[in-house]
Amino acid sequence: MRAVVLLVTALCFTTLAPALPADEGMWLFNDLPRELLMQRHGFAPDAKWTDHLMRSSVRFNSGGSGSFVSSQGLVLTNHHVGADTLHKLSTAERNLMQDGFLARNTDEELKAPDLELSQLLTIRDVTAEVQAAVSADSTAAEAATARRAVISRLEKSVTETGRLRGQVVTLYGGARYHLYQYKLYSDVRLVWAPETAIAFFGGDADNFEYPRYCLDACIFRVWEDNRPAETTDFLRWSESGPQQNDVVFVSGNPARTSRIRTVAALQYQRDHALPATLNRLRRYEILLQQYSLRGTEQARQARDDLFSIQNSRKARLGMLAGLQDPRIMKIKASAEAELLDAVRSNEQLQALESAWQQVAQTSAERAEHSSGLPSVRSTLLQKAIQIVQLVDENQKTDEARLPEFSDASRASLEQQLFSDAPVYPDLEQVLLAEWFSEVLESLGADDELSRKLIDGVSAADRAAAAIAETKLADPEMRRRLVSGGPAAVQESADPLLRIARLIDPVLRAARDEADALAEQDRQAYASIAEAGFAVRGTSVYPDATFTLRLSFGPVSGYLQNGQQIPAWTTIGEAWQHQKQHSGQTDYQLPDSWMQARERLDLSTPFNFVCTADIIGGNSGSPVVNRNGELVGLIFDGNIQSLPGNYIYSDRQARAVSVHSSAIQEALKNVYLAEKLVAELGH
Amino acid sequence: MRAVVLLVTALCFTTLAPALPADEGMWLFNDLPRELLMQRHGFAPDAKWTDHLMRSSVRFNSGGSGSFVSSQGLVLTNHHVGADTLHKLSTAERNLMQDGFLARNTDEELKAPDLELSQLLTIRDVTAEVQAAVSADSTAAEAATARRAVISRLEKSVTETGRLRGQVVTLYGGARYHLYQYKLYSDVRLVWAPETAIAFFGGDADNFEYPRYCLDACIFRVWEDNRPAETTDFLRWSESGPQQNDVVFVSGNPARTSRIRTVAALQYQRDHALPATLNRLRRYEILLQQYSLRGTEQARQARDDLFSIQNSRKARLGMLAGLQDPRIMKIKASAEAELLDAVRSNEQLQALESAWQQVAQTSAERAEHSSGLPSVRSTLLQKAIQIVQLVDENQKTDEARLPEFSDASRASLEQQLFSDAPVYPDLEQVLLAEWFSEVLESLGADDELSRKLIDGVSAADRAAAAIAETKLADPEMRRRLVSGGPAAVQESADPLLRIARLIDPVLRAARDEADALAEQDRQAYASIAEAGFAVRGTSVYPDATFTLRLSFGPVSGYLQNGQQIPAWTTIGEAWQHQKQHSGQTDYQLPDSWMQARERLDLSTPFNFVCTADIIGGNSGSPVVNRNGELVGLIFDGNIQSLPGNYIYSDRQARAVSVHSSAIQEALKNVYLAEKLVAELGH
Repeated sequence: MRAVVLLVTALCFTTLAPALPADEGMWLFNDLPRELLMQRHGFAPDAKWTDHLMRSSVRFNSGGSGSFVSSQGLVLTNHHVGADTLHKLSTAERNLMQDGFLARNTDEELKAPDLELSQLLTIRDVTAEVQAAVSADSTAAEAATARRAVISRLEKSVTETGRLRGQVVTLYGGARYHLYQYKLYSDVRLVWAPETAIAFFGGDADNFEYPRYCLDACIFRVWEDNRPAETTDFLRWSESGPQQNDVVFVSGNPARTSRIRTVAALQYQRDHALPATLNRLRRYEILLQQYSLRGTEQARQARDDLFSIQNSRKARLGMLAGLQDPRIMKIKASAEAELLDAVRSNEQLQALESAWQQVAQTSAERAEHSSGLPSVRSTLLQKAIQIVQLVDENQKTDEARLPEFSDASRASLEQQLFSDAPVYPDLEQVLLAEWFSEVLESLGADDELSRKLIDGVSAADRAAAAIAETKLADPEMRRRLVSGGPAAVQESADPLLRIARLIDPVLRAARDEADALAEQDRQAYASIAEAGFAVRGTSVYPDATFTLRLSFGPVSGYLQNGQQIPAWTTIGEAWQHQKQHSGQTDYQLPDSWMQARERLDLSTPFNFVCTADIIGGNSGSPVVNRNGELVGLIFDGNIQSLPGNYIYSDRQARAVSVHSSAIQEALKNVYLAEKLVAELGH
Repeated sequence: MRAVVLLVTALCFTTLAPALPADEGMWLFNDLPRELLMQRHGFAPDAKWTDHLMRSSVRFNSGGSGSFVSSQGLVLTNHHVGADTLHKLSTAERNLMQDGFLARNTDEELKAPDLELSQLLTIRDVTAEVQAAVSADSTAAEAATARRAVISRLEKSVTETGRLRGQVVTLYGGARYHLYQYKLYSDVRLVWAPETAIAFFGGDADNFEYPRYCLDACIFRVWEDNRPAETTDFLRWSESGPQQNDVVFVSGNPARTSRIRTVAALQYQRDHALPATLNRLRRYEILLQQYSLRGTEQARQARDDLFSIQNSRKARLGMLAGLQDPRIMKIKASAEAELLDAVRSNEQLQALESAWQQVAQTSAERAEHSSGLPSVRSTLLQKAIQIVQLVDENQKTDEARLPEFSDASRASLEQQLFSDAPVYPDLEQVLLAEWFSEVLESLGADDELSRKLIDGVSAADRAAAAIAETKLADPEMRRRLVSGGPAAVQESADPLLRIARLIDPVLRAARDEADALAEQDRQAYASIAEAGFAVRGTSVYPDATFTLRLSFGPVSGYLQNGQQIPAWTTIGEAWQHQKQHSGQTDYQLPDSWMQARERLDLSTPFNFVCTADIIGGNSGSPVVNRNGELVGLIFDGNIQSLPGNYIYSDRQARAVSVHSSAIQEALKNVYLAEKLVAELGH
């Protein structure tokens, strides 16, 4: 792993390290590294280029990225980003996940029950305003309250209900605050999706692997006022796609990285947080597998959750393996020691040193308080908790509310809470029973709350009774409870509301504790970031925050176990892959592809890799060339990219995309969607 | 769950509770409840009956039960008990697990690489001799040493290398010691096995469920001096099988129950031990699933381990669900309170009360020291540890050795250690890498041992290098190391021996600690058992110890969700079950059955249930009628039987058997094994 030693870690200063060896960075659109780009790739995008790309990009608030690809509101994203909606639009009789979908005209487009997209319009640095609201001598709790208040006011200032939403983004761990204004789209309709068999060809086995042969793509359309939304900000389609070593650009919303984290915080992640998360993921993976074994309909019901969990499990295993690798930890420790030395030897910075101890302390506290109430996975109990908390928060001023209940977030919250997406009672029942068991395990079965929750019977019996009796599956009942306010909720005998009321104080206490630790971390990381700015300069990118970033790097294969992995695969190789894995689950091309073989140009590039710095949340991001034309669609990182949460590498780590030509070729020759193809890029 | 309140728990005295409501009990063959049997079933087996059944029964030391079914050494057991051997006899080209096997004559029988069966010949109560060896004023450690010495001498007194083995069995948690003499069979050959598709029809989904349709059977033959072993102790086949409500008898080796355990000990199981075990099981379940996804050959390699793990996971989930059910815990608490009251109010017993506090203390200590080195799952590392420990233990006197290295156990140990069963390097590698990760998680990655183990690289890289370099896959190399003694082992540069040497001190320290707690428990439970004897009388059965027991109860269906579950299924219903689960994994009858349908009598009883008190380890136990004739073959308990580890119930809990007629019918009409059928029972 020699080349890793050459890597640059987060917060390295480019002018002190002019021969930057890698295309590291998830850059802010209002602070792009133009000098670096010019230096490495002889191309610095101008404001028009970046502004167009920014506005052509969308965020799937369910967790992913996408882009406008026509003047009539077509949005391209991954099949696995759209899967949440495909699942919600499916029934026992109509399995869109399995069979795919194509709307022959706009009338046939299927409206997503609760999908919301955000388009970033403007960014304003509000650091001074946020910091001015917090007086230097306030306690952590006072600081948090004051900050929440000013953030709430700032967000509200640019929010227009139903259309525009303001969001203050905390950057560099708390050293900077930017106010983002988004346009929201909440009428989103499904236009086209392929079968899971080709979108996720190779299944869980091939996930995070490369070479790949996946059409992980689907297309939605955003509507406004019951008409396709018109826009001038959309991406045109590249004729040829990228060439070997061409630099490409990725515009998307990486969800979270932890590159600023201190060694103590990473040790906590490695020895406590990640192992505990993995145990929970494996638990629900087995549970959903068991539920799926009951029958094909149950397997359909659980499919989307199961995929998410398997995806998270594999991602986190890769992250943990990275942190458990002493070679990676050594790089992090050296970089930290170097920065600390610089801080200690500079009188003006010495005061910042305590920030590292502060993080060590919050990490130790988290390690001690690792147990608590496990996350609720029953959709109906989640909604019950939302209802109990919403009617309560509604009594407070906007500024005093928990952020997800603020006026700025209200439209998104209600879209979710009152969604008419189907709910499956049997699945709810096993998820609730498992959660009861988890609570009993983490609090102890003799704990008072444990006893109250299961109320004298087994977890399974308690869950069965609660799901049988609850009325919360009906969106109208949920609306009525919310409009009835605290009285209606308090008086309701609904068993899930009863459970939600029981646990609400515990959830709030845990939230307060977590927020207090987060506030201490925020202060500490703000100091650490300032130390980095002072020592290494300010030309650095902040950790990912599920907001729009630009990454870049050349299209390039890599060496693995002595073998050169090519940058591209082709459509024809999918058949070879099928043959090599004959008889195995998830390696059977769908009928549509088997029948289309003769029509397809088998030499069409299918998937490709580049060195752009991406992570989960980037799924669905458009990949564009220097001309700003669409050449690909990010859908994965390879297994070597998983430690990217902590450290970037371009030795073997790669971002994996669907090639734009493969999407066109399949639409034309497999799905016979000429009309849709004609609209793309126009 | 009303009927549960009527249950009798372990240690209840039958003469004080004459109207015993249930056929509870795993009874010792030298202390059968004849009075109870006469009273409930009008039948008390005489010495000849029981002696014959005892000697017709065998224990599979790999974990299971079986019986002689011919004068020429045929042994009937479950397919899933034989699976360990089927797996070891299989290769990439010859998949016995999938395809089944039938030897047309004795020449074709396949010798198991390392299977050992024990036949119980005699039982002698040696309680007085064991207790005499321990002086009243000795410390726990001294008591343990003295007891180990006398046990070692007693066992040696009846052991004849290669033929007979002595074993002192600790009963009633330490209140009684019996010396068992076994005849050993180590030349065991495979005669017949069906396909997994019918042996385990319904797969993991149907495991621990009922109704069932499984031919979970296979037949071995024991050989002596290179000839089929002759015996007069074998079971004849019943012509008709049992009728509804007929009492039947189960003779087998239940592995472990915990019915004597105090509430504090059960709370520890519920809140600590079982959740931790389940996390480990789920971890390896996912790991082996992932390995299996690599291809069909990898799936074959992992199949047997994966089945074991899934089976354990499902069993333990049922046990945990039982302990988490307040209704069950209440029964245990009431029984304990009642006994404690009796102890407190009797001056002669008052001194015994401290035993409950003692168990509470050892439980608390276990809860605090729950982490430590996780169990090793790589076969080669297991062998490396055995080698390191064996050459070390060989330097000690027999009495001072760890029990598994004693002279009495030597033959069994060497059969395992020098087995030429295949070892799969890729599988070893992932198991070793996972174990490294587990160690890093449980000790912390910065712990000194963690760092030494992975030696500066990732867990995956370290495991890959160790498995690539080790020579321990060769049985000859293992023999050579053992005969070379400590010097040879110490000098070896084998990476797995290096790892074994690193962890040996830690394993021994953990063993010492566990043994010390076990010794404290033994003393406490001996007192608790004595208290029980004094208050409730001595006519009680001890907890299961993987030694031969007799259980009994009527063949009887049960009511579930308002539906009457019949006692029997038929062979014809297997086709209905297949149809109901069309398209699902593990619900496809094998080709041999599909082709045999016309020849089969579809009304033949297939599986049946009875109320006999069984648990894991009973798999493969013969079920006999009053005439001592074979009527069935235990292969499972239903889901309601899983809390049976702690408490017996006959409300819904049932033992599940293959009907003897189904075995004959399938052998005749599916497998066309006329010759084998003719030999059965003769």
